[in-house]
Amino acid sequence: MGKTQIIAEAGIPQITVSREFDAPRDLVFQAYTDPELLVRWFGPRDETTTIDRHDLRDGGRWRYVTRDGEGNEFGFRGVFHGDQTPDGMVRTFEFEGVPGHVVLETTTLEERDGRTLVRTVSSYQSVEDRDAMVASGMEHGVHESHERIEELLAKLQAG
Amino acid sequence: MGKTQIIAEAGIPQITVSREFDAPRDLVFQAYTDPELLVRWFGPRDETTTIDRHDLRDGGRWRYVTRDGEGNEFGFRGVFHGDQTPDGMVRTFEFEGVPGHVVLETTTLEERDGRTLVRTVSSYQSVEDRDAMVASGMEHGVHESHERIEELLAKLQAG
Repeated sequence: MGKTQIIAEAGIPQITVSREFDAPRDLVFQAYTDPELLVRWFGPRDETTTIDRHDLRDGGRWRYVTRDGEGNEFGFRGVFHGDQTPDGMVRTFEFEGVPGHVVLETTTLEERDGRTLVRTVSSYQSVEDRDAMVASGMEHGVHESHERIEELLAKLQAG
Repeated sequence: MGKTQIIAEAGIPQITVSREFDAPRDLVFQAYTDPELLVRWFGPRDETTTIDRHDLRDGGRWRYVTRDGEGNEFGFRGVFHGDQTPDGMVRTFEFEGVPGHVVLETTTLEERDGRTLVRTVSSYQSVEDRDAMVASGMEHGVHESHERIEELLAKLQAG
């Protein structure tokens, strides 16, 4: 199975996350863009996600809300830039808990022998913002989300 | 008079542009956000600029078109992120000539003794994108735009 790789080089205001999934590219694209599939993997397992807004077109806005076991809610939002296709997806990302800190995310999907490498480069406004994201424990959330995507893709392929 | 400083460190996917203007912050903010003033300084002197779209609110889109002496048109566009205030302005920026290459721009305005330091950090998707922007001759455009802003601010203050 694929392993998630997270790269955050010292002094560079970016994080690169990559992971190979055992599924064809179109299905992985669907998991990343279909709201009904997104809620099945976005965030850690002990939180539930609702899609408040998901206008998947150039300039369209998106907003997800996660809710933990104690009822705390966390909002995430951004704007899609350009057409979102299996060739590439560009969007901005903000955690509403720290307004004004915007991240530019570029995701590519590359199919190799029926498997798909997903790579997301997140560009931050500053190294400080990037370091704060790493310090927030994002790594755990990324790993758990990726496990959940893998499980979802297996289920979808099992029919 | 202020001098424009452009910093593009090797290997860092950012450009930082800063310049001090001899005008109070509110007036500088107005020059950056009022479409009627924007067209008086945006771009090089031998081009004219029209504002196609300028929806100055969170999630609002903007689009400027410049036209050179030979009638060639160049489109620039993006999305405002958060409220645009004298404290800070965050927006995305795309040159329509190279679609899919998005820049995240963060501008701060700091007033010191009636003068205002404007600082814009542009975060690119990659060092390659950043280097292409530097190679495109953006430096000339930035210097000329800043000269034009300085002249405009002087005129506005002279009444």
